[in-house]
Amino acid sequence: MCPCGSRTRTETVRGPFTNWYDIRGVHNADLIRQFGDAYNIHPLAQEDILDTQQRPKLEEYDNGIFLTAQALLVDEKVGKIETEQIAIFFGNHFILSFQEKEDDNFAAVRTRLLTPHAKIRRRGADYLAYALLDSVVDYYYPILDHVEEQIDALEVSILSEPGQDTKSSIHQLKRQLLTLRKAIVPLREAVAKFSRIDSPQVKDDTLVFVRDLHDHVIQVMDTIETYRDLVNGLYDLYLSEISYRTNNVMKILTIISTIFIPLTFLAGVYGMNFKNMPELGWKYGYFYLWGFMFLIFIVSLLFFRRKKWI
Amino acid sequence: MCPCGSRTRTETVRGPFTNWYDIRGVHNADLIRQFGDAYNIHPLAQEDILDTQQRPKLEEYDNGIFLTAQALLVDEKVGKIETEQIAIFFGNHFILSFQEKEDDNFAAVRTRLLTPHAKIRRRGADYLAYALLDSVVDYYYPILDHVEEQIDALEVSILSEPGQDTKSSIHQLKRQLLTLRKAIVPLREAVAKFSRIDSPQVKDDTLVFVRDLHDHVIQVMDTIETYRDLVNGLYDLYLSEISYRTNNVMKILTIISTIFIPLTFLAGVYGMNFKNMPELGWKYGYFYLWGFMFLIFIVSLLFFRRKKWI
Amino acid sequence: MCPCGSRTRTETVRGPFTNWYDIRGVHNADLIRQFGDAYNIHPLAQEDILDTQQRPKLEEYDNGIFLTAQALLVDEKVGKIETEQIAIFFGNHFILSFQEKEDDNFAAVRTRLLTPHAKIRRRGADYLAYALLDSVVDYYYPILDHVEEQIDALEVSILSEPGQDTKSSIHQLKRQLLTLRKAIVPLREAVAKFSRIDSPQVKDDTLVFVRDLHDHVIQVMDTIETYRDLVNGLYDLYLSEISYRTNNVMKILTIISTIFIPLTFLAGVYGMNFKNMPELGWKYGYFYLWGFMFLIFIVSLLFFRRKKWI
Amino acid sequence: MCPCGSRTRTETVRGPFTNWYDIRGVHNADLIRQFGDAYNIHPLAQEDILDTQQRPKLEEYDNGIFLTAQALLVDEKVGKIETEQIAIFFGNHFILSFQEKEDDNFAAVRTRLLTPHAKIRRRGADYLAYALLDSVVDYYYPILDHVEEQIDALEVSILSEPGQDTKSSIHQLKRQLLTLRKAIVPLREAVAKFSRIDSPQVKDDTLVFVRDLHDHVIQVMDTIETYRDLVNGLYDLYLSEISYRTNNVMKILTIISTIFIPLTFLAGVYGMNFKNMPELGWKYGYFYLWGFMFLIFIVSLLFFRRKKWI
Amino acid sequence: MCPCGSRTRTETVRGPFTNWYDIRGVHNADLIRQFGDAYNIHPLAQEDILDTQQRPKLEEYDNGIFLTAQALLVDEKVGKIETEQIAIFFGNHFILSFQEKEDDNFAAVRTRLLTPHAKIRRRGADYLAYALLDSVVDYYYPILDHVEEQIDALEVSILSEPGQDTKSSIHQLKRQLLTLRKAIVPLREAVAKFSRIDSPQVKDDTLVFVRDLHDHVIQVMDTIETYRDLVNGLYDLYLSEISYRTNNVMKILTIISTIFIPLTFLAGVYGMNFKNMPELGWKYGYFYLWGFMFLIFIVSLLFFRRKKWI
Repeated sequence: MCPCGSRTRTETVRGPFTNWYDIRGVHNADLIRQFGDAYNIHPLAQEDILDTQQRPKLEEYDNGIFLTAQALLVDEKVGKIETEQIAIFFGNHFILSFQEKEDDNFAAVRTRLLTPHAKIRRRGADYLAYALLDSVVDYYYPILDHVEEQIDALEVSILSEPGQDTKSSIHQLKRQLLTLRKAIVPLREAVAKFSRIDSPQVKDDTLVFVRDLHDHVIQVMDTIETYRDLVNGLYDLYLSEISYRTNNVMKILTIISTIFIPLTFLAGVYGMNFKNMPELGWKYGYFYLWGFMFLIFIVSLLFFRRKKWI
Repeated sequence: MCPCGSRTRTETVRGPFTNWYDIRGVHNADLIRQFGDAYNIHPLAQEDILDTQQRPKLEEYDNGIFLTAQALLVDEKVGKIETEQIAIFFGNHFILSFQEKEDDNFAAVRTRLLTPHAKIRRRGADYLAYALLDSVVDYYYPILDHVEEQIDALEVSILSEPGQDTKSSIHQLKRQLLTLRKAIVPLREAVAKFSRIDSPQVKDDTLVFVRDLHDHVIQVMDTIETYRDLVNGLYDLYLSEISYRTNNVMKILTIISTIFIPLTFLAGVYGMNFKNMPELGWKYGYFYLWGFMFLIFIVSLLFFRRKKWI
Repeated sequence: MCPCGSRTRTETVRGPFTNWYDIRGVHNADLIRQFGDAYNIHPLAQEDILDTQQRPKLEEYDNGIFLTAQALLVDEKVGKIETEQIAIFFGNHFILSFQEKEDDNFAAVRTRLLTPHAKIRRRGADYLAYALLDSVVDYYYPILDHVEEQIDALEVSILSEPGQDTKSSIHQLKRQLLTLRKAIVPLREAVAKFSRIDSPQVKDDTLVFVRDLHDHVIQVMDTIETYRDLVNGLYDLYLSEISYRTNNVMKILTIISTIFIPLTFLAGVYGMNFKNMPELGWKYGYFYLWGFMFLIFIVSLLFFRRKKWI
Repeated sequence: MCPCGSRTRTETVRGPFTNWYDIRGVHNADLIRQFGDAYNIHPLAQEDILDTQQRPKLEEYDNGIFLTAQALLVDEKVGKIETEQIAIFFGNHFILSFQEKEDDNFAAVRTRLLTPHAKIRRRGADYLAYALLDSVVDYYYPILDHVEEQIDALEVSILSEPGQDTKSSIHQLKRQLLTLRKAIVPLREAVAKFSRIDSPQVKDDTLVFVRDLHDHVIQVMDTIETYRDLVNGLYDLYLSEISYRTNNVMKILTIISTIFIPLTFLAGVYGMNFKNMPELGWKYGYFYLWGFMFLIFIVSLLFFRRKKWI
Repeated sequence: MCPCGSRTRTETVRGPFTNWYDIRGVHNADLIRQFGDAYNIHPLAQEDILDTQQRPKLEEYDNGIFLTAQALLVDEKVGKIETEQIAIFFGNHFILSFQEKEDDNFAAVRTRLLTPHAKIRRRGADYLAYALLDSVVDYYYPILDHVEEQIDALEVSILSEPGQDTKSSIHQLKRQLLTLRKAIVPLREAVAKFSRIDSPQVKDDTLVFVRDLHDHVIQVMDTIETYRDLVNGLYDLYLSEISYRTNNVMKILTIISTIFIPLTFLAGVYGMNFKNMPELGWKYGYFYLWGFMFLIFIVSLLFFRRKKWI
């Protein structure tokens, strides 16, 4: 029952009531088909396992419940959020989980299961399905915290020293939140369906936990929406910061120009070579002119002071 | 029944029909667990008490009703709004309240309870739960008033003298409103659920009051949405103000440049040292030039006057 | 039954089937309480009458129906829209109306009632409640017309001569529309509830009229939403107008600078005092230079003409 | 039965099963009242016919169905969209239509009716009501096409030569779309109500056609929403176009200034009259300076070339 | 039964249980009518086949189910997305498909059908209808991928070198997404209706596949909405990029002007021809001035360095 492919890893945990088969790496289509046929997974559900671009969903079949979700991975090197598809199919005494890539998203659950007297050991496949989904959702929180830190850092950077990268950082953040939202919106629908399910495969006790999970998913969605509002606010902040700075740059230019252009004109006038320019012959003409230019200078300063530019 | 921890304070009010245990400071997990187990609080609800980042919600259990809400605190020093989680669990003859921090949000209710013939004394745990929630919601009003004052002040400041801080003040206000909304949206759902509840623990008389509370929560939400619109309007106002000012700065620069640049050119021309420049030898050449330059000056002024710039 | 306070006015109209008590000025809490107790108004409803910041709503009680609405007042002096709370409580043979301020919103209804053979006299308290609400809603129309005039005036002003006040006028209009919307949204809910009511106090004949009122309220809301879109459009229009103007200012500055800065440079060159500057000695050097500068001037003009700036 | 007023025209078509009375021009209130009373139209519906600002709606009465809609007129001269109210009341064997203005919106239907063996002649009043509504909705399509042409023309004009009128044209288009939407949104509700009606006055056969009409109305609404998005996009396009152009204008100014301001400074330096300025005496000083200035010129060009400005 | 018009092609596939007639090119109205009448297609449905601007929809008739959808075509030459209407009518043992244009959208399905032992051959007309719709929806994916590539390319281009075309490219993309959305929104409704259908013409087995198709359509819609958000984000990015660049251009202009304008003024002063200008006679006056001007230059540089402009 465990024909491990070269790169696809299969791990089996046999509990007192439930067997859990965890298949990692869905590129081995043959293996998926073997499991799928052995457990009578509907052909469409089998296709959904292989197609890793599926929208999270939950479908009830006669012999079990099939659900998919998007687990999140942060590629630390480029700081990009990537998604990995998780598919779960469980019936009365078994649960199959399919992870798109080979690394394990369910290590924490496996550890709890292997603890000798853990409560999770005494519960059925439905509870295990909840536990797996829960561990997927739990991973959203640190990512959201990471996003929040980035938002705060960007906000500080915009108000202190907006640079070349700021725009693209905001845009990057926006894309990340869109990725997150695209994963969580359908997951919310699927978990809501799970929490209202009326199926022999799911016990009422478990539904209390699924409703709790549903609360968590809604909280994640609320937080994502709030962050989206914040990121859109960052754009506004950035644009108003740049406008404010351009305004200030213009003021400096205008102050310098307004003061010196008339003075330069005056200097130009007395640099002319007309034969008959009486002022040039005055004994203190030069000094009178300096005085006049100083007067213009002071008046300009007062003008800008009254406008509260300086 | 009242094992007070070193920093967690527990206060008990025993009424004729109902005992109220108020636990402040949820960092003492053991104490929470003792109370929780004594009153058969569901493990998930116990977790919700300890996890202070819960979304406000209401859950019905067989032995009582569990609800959480976010009380608001304004940190006067930095003017920041903070939230504190309140959890309430009540059954037929008891009510437990858990406050995240040690300071008391329920002083007003306690005072009313201790008044000898107060009506609240004769009512049950359900009414007390309503009263506690009501006192939490009541505290939203002064905070909203505070926000409104800030909006008005910002509006005046933008139209008179938008400065370096204006942008970040608007952004700050936006964040505060997002915090408020994140607390109130799920609270509305929880209170709506409370107001429609059909449970032996809640009497019909009390539901009238809960519906009234529901109206208040909706009113708070309406107000928050209105303020959010206003704050977004402030951004528009700020940007148009800055654009208008930049436009004015540009006009001053353009007026000064347009007037003096041609004049300076003319002065430059007659400052040239060509041997053969007839005008330089004219007796009144210098004065003719002044007249011509004055003419240009007047024409420029008329041009800008017609454009209504000056 | 009519203990008029010093400033609170009470007016009673006794009809063949129904008595109408109209209390104006709700600051006289004692009087309200007397009426409230005499007609068994629920304590919460009594509080709602006194608290003039209530959200419009409708509540059914055993002995009657209680509803509140926001009447609108335009303060002609400052052109600001203010709201005044109206509360109505009616049962089978009586109707009480409470107006927040002392001036009368119901003069038109009273006149119709006092007309000897008016149909309204033969109808019950439910129809009178409709008539009072209707007269409140009727007053929204002239205010909306006033808002529309302001929008049109602002639009003309933005396209012709946007000034210092334009921004704040747009903002002011936006606030007014938010005030209107805050009053009308819950009123719509209340009237919808009224139109679907199934109560012994309301006859089916009256419901036809209430549904008609509901249509009017929805029409008011549609209009407010349309105006909000228009006002937001005014911001866009204003910003694009200012951008367009700044662009034009920049063009003037650039044309003047691009033409004269190179010419001034040339004049500067031939104003230098180098011993050996052959051109200065040429007989027609000065005139050649004028010709060259004229050429530059023409080329610049052609350049800007091709760019369609002039 | 056909008392034609001086300007109100009444046209009657008597079919085998149904009589159709078409009243054009609703300013003749007396005539409306005569018809209304003869056919027992509810007083509120009669008021709705006269009040030409009604929201499209559909009301069921015991003796017939009353509905209103907004027909569209394009005032060719000013290119403005105007609305005209149409009211229809039909029972088992009669249909009354009221057109706000005197010109005929129903010419096409009348032509079909007068064709001897047309199917429409054999159908009842309900089908005729559908046909009239349908002819109203049909007129929306050419208007939407006209709007689309305007959008396309504006887009081209913004990208090639945005002028003084562009802003107001976009704004005008936005207003037109708001007018359209205000007419179509409630019409959709009314037609939806019509398509789900369960009334002895409407046959099931007719409902198939009304559902088809409903599809058309929804399609019109979709198109209006799409156009609104496009028009909002035009604003964005306009603003980014103007920003781009301002940026280009600034570049030209900066290039000219950056090149010539330092050169002018140098010319100014060697125009000074200091006694002791060694360079002035150099034999080739003037030519060295030209070389140096040419060097600065080339370096500036390279600088701007590297920035990809030229 | 196969009267092929000159340009309208009809292709018939006779299966064991079902006959499929595929009519390409709907301009041959007579042919459509012949088929329509032979299979009793409702006149309204026949009109919908001919009117190629129909909104995707699904209608149940007694003798079969009628549905329309928009297939997508990318005009490779101009890179524009065009839509082509597909209409399908199927009953118990037949299916008719109508393609607006003559090229074939269903080649893949036809190939599968002609494969001897394909499962699709053993299923009924309902499954074939699903397969045809599915092949239409499948074609949306490569188009969305194409859009995503364009978004990515534009993003890079905006951040590196936003040019004249960028604005119109963003606008173009926005229009394409609006076209896509206008096709997919009603298709979602139609497929949802299909997936919930309760009709003798559709077997339960098929509904599982239709629900899967529904998931795909919703996923396409989610993706379109995400792309719309991204494209709107590109506008923000573009505007902030241009603002940032304008700000930088202004800084260069201001730096050059602020440094040289005062220096030029000083040079102008010492170019004046006053008789009595003591500094001109100083032995090292010229060199002192150079030193002073160098000082101003350094101070200016330090000023801009402190402002972090250079």
